[in-house]
Amino acid sequence: MSHPPPAAGRAPLGVAVLGSTGSIGTRALDVLAQHPDRFRVVALAAGRNVALLAEQVARFAPSFVGCEAAGFDPGDGARLLPMEEIVARPDVELVVAGTVGVAGLGATLCALRLGKPVALANKEVLVMAGRVIGETARAGGGSLRPVDSEHSAIWQCLWGERAESVGKIILTASGGAFRDLPAEDLTRVTPAQALHHPTWQMGRKITVDSATLMNKGLETIEARWLFDVPLERVEVLMHRESIVHSLVEFRDGSVKAQLGEPDMRLPILCALAYPERLAHPETPRLDLGRVGALHFAPPEMGRFPCLALAMEAGRRGGTFPAVLVGAGEAAVEGFLAGEIGFTEMACVVEDALGAHERGDDSEIEAVLAADTWARRRARSWIESRR
Amino acid sequence: MSHPPPAAGRAPLGVAVLGSTGSIGTRALDVLAQHPDRFRVVALAAGRNVALLAEQVARFAPSFVGCEAAGFDPGDGARLLPMEEIVARPDVELVVAGTVGVAGLGATLCALRLGKPVALANKEVLVMAGRVIGETARAGGGSLRPVDSEHSAIWQCLWGERAESVGKIILTASGGAFRDLPAEDLTRVTPAQALHHPTWQMGRKITVDSATLMNKGLETIEARWLFDVPLERVEVLMHRESIVHSLVEFRDGSVKAQLGEPDMRLPILCALAYPERLAHPETPRLDLGRVGALHFAPPEMGRFPCLALAMEAGRRGGTFPAVLVGAGEAAVEGFLAGEIGFTEMACVVEDALGAHERGDDSEIEAVLAADTWARRRARSWIESRR
Repeated sequence: MSHPPPAAGRAPLGVAVLGSTGSIGTRALDVLAQHPDRFRVVALAAGRNVALLAEQVARFAPSFVGCEAAGFDPGDGARLLPMEEIVARPDVELVVAGTVGVAGLGATLCALRLGKPVALANKEVLVMAGRVIGETARAGGGSLRPVDSEHSAIWQCLWGERAESVGKIILTASGGAFRDLPAEDLTRVTPAQALHHPTWQMGRKITVDSATLMNKGLETIEARWLFDVPLERVEVLMHRESIVHSLVEFRDGSVKAQLGEPDMRLPILCALAYPERLAHPETPRLDLGRVGALHFAPPEMGRFPCLALAMEAGRRGGTFPAVLVGAGEAAVEGFLAGEIGFTEMACVVEDALGAHERGDDSEIEAVLAADTWARRRARSWIESRR
Repeated sequence: MSHPPPAAGRAPLGVAVLGSTGSIGTRALDVLAQHPDRFRVVALAAGRNVALLAEQVARFAPSFVGCEAAGFDPGDGARLLPMEEIVARPDVELVVAGTVGVAGLGATLCALRLGKPVALANKEVLVMAGRVIGETARAGGGSLRPVDSEHSAIWQCLWGERAESVGKIILTASGGAFRDLPAEDLTRVTPAQALHHPTWQMGRKITVDSATLMNKGLETIEARWLFDVPLERVEVLMHRESIVHSLVEFRDGSVKAQLGEPDMRLPILCALAYPERLAHPETPRLDLGRVGALHFAPPEMGRFPCLALAMEAGRRGGTFPAVLVGAGEAAVEGFLAGEIGFTEMACVVEDALGAHERGDDSEIEAVLAADTWARRRARSWIESRR
């Protein structure tokens, strides 16, 4: 890796990549490696993929390494630390939170409490603990930068706008793998079919969630917390090309949209470089004249019960979104393991939401307990069907 | 008109509407009348439509009135003044320049010199005298706010962005009245047909210019001056629905677009209220789910020679854009009077541009002289064909 001199008067920004071996983490490292004059990878943290983590440590030579697996040797140049301690290091100026599940929650809260910007890719954590995360960010002066393409789009549309100008947020949805399948055939689809997303290359969980539109439901709650708007002002719009990544309608009737080829490196670069925009040589350029047409339609709520369930959980608030996340993850695992059918995933979630008693989401312990309870409830539903 | 109390701690902004009886002026007054707590119409100026001007004076009770026609009586409450003196009055805090031709140029320059914001709807003036207007604004601290829907779109997409982030500007074009007509039939179209625009209600000159795409050519030069980008980074994209009003591609590959129903009140309100956005009860709301599809295509340069001529005039710079404007206006007048055919308008402009010797556009006199020369040259071309 060559290291051109840093931009005049500015040292490269110190970045910690949490979840460095995952889908977001590896792409973030790709982007960071393209701009060594602007960014320095000072810390890496991963879960159990120790082989890839070791490669990344050799390539980026971070000062600090976090690893969930016991006994990882970071080598001579780096110190092994828990994620919470990593983000607190003074040379960590920006945190990329690409962790899965609740693993990165503590580190995210810690970074926000210390006033550091966090590029957050973990939507489950924000859906469950959005209230606590938002309050921590406000109190500590830290800021959240979305990495999800939809929320990055909304964020970009809001630059230079006043909070009171926002009318509504419009999240676009590709419709996922089964958007063109007759509704009655949905009971028979296989995990392999559900894992084939028409426009985006993503992880397994999120690809299945895209096919049920659970992902879009989670994103409405995520948007509510990221942009501090009531859920009633978040809408979903079907858009099969995944080129308009999302839109904001302002109260004067003006609508702004952010567009681009579906490439996760673009929102990642945007979150890293904000408020600048850095040229990325490999990013594909959008050519609307060649694309020809963009299509939009209202969502078919009947076809996608998980979307309605998610929006309902969001409206009920409290610990219901945590139940949505916990039961939803267990349902996807059950579907991918062949234990339940595609349409039964909604039944698992509906059962858990129906049985849950609302807790207080201003306490992180209550949120995590609801998530755990929901996973257990979902498992017993699934096992009762075997 | 009822006058609710002004917003807390803020007096209504004093606005002068120049060209108040025209297409932009009347719509600006509609918008201003909807927000009497935010705006006060302190001055009106018009050309020869004295009947409508008198009505407007009675309705808005401005302190100052300008009128090109001799002997206009503004009544007891108002003072008759030249436009340059109107914009200099201390209670004029914002100027809407909706004048036609070079009538409002002096007043626009005067307002910018005094550091006042000008909502500019007169694209011909900006195309001809963009260099002088831009330099005057920079020196005086005044700012231009676009009123054209396309430029308003670009402006809105640039809020919160850095100048160096801009990759290119993409102006959308509906294609005008003859977008679906076989090219060989264009020689036979009538003025009545050319005056029927598919998506926008506008004045006669601009509607004909939309059918030839001359309007889009003028807009590329206008964008060059409004946003201080080289003309090579301004592109045109055909978009028949006129819903995406224009786009900006940033250097990281991200694209922002501004959308809305085609309604001129929206960009006018945006220019008046900036940096706020005010709700306007009558503005139609965009419903993309109902719209269904948006179409895009590269422009057919062969079918629209005026677009290529305009972009060429812009590239050559100096007084060529003034010749484009002067010859273009004479050509449209000749076409509307039945003196020349639709496709001959491009010939008129091409002849004038071909015969012109480039002058210096940093001198307003040279610009105006080129415009006058081009009108005379165009007239003689037209008369030679009768």
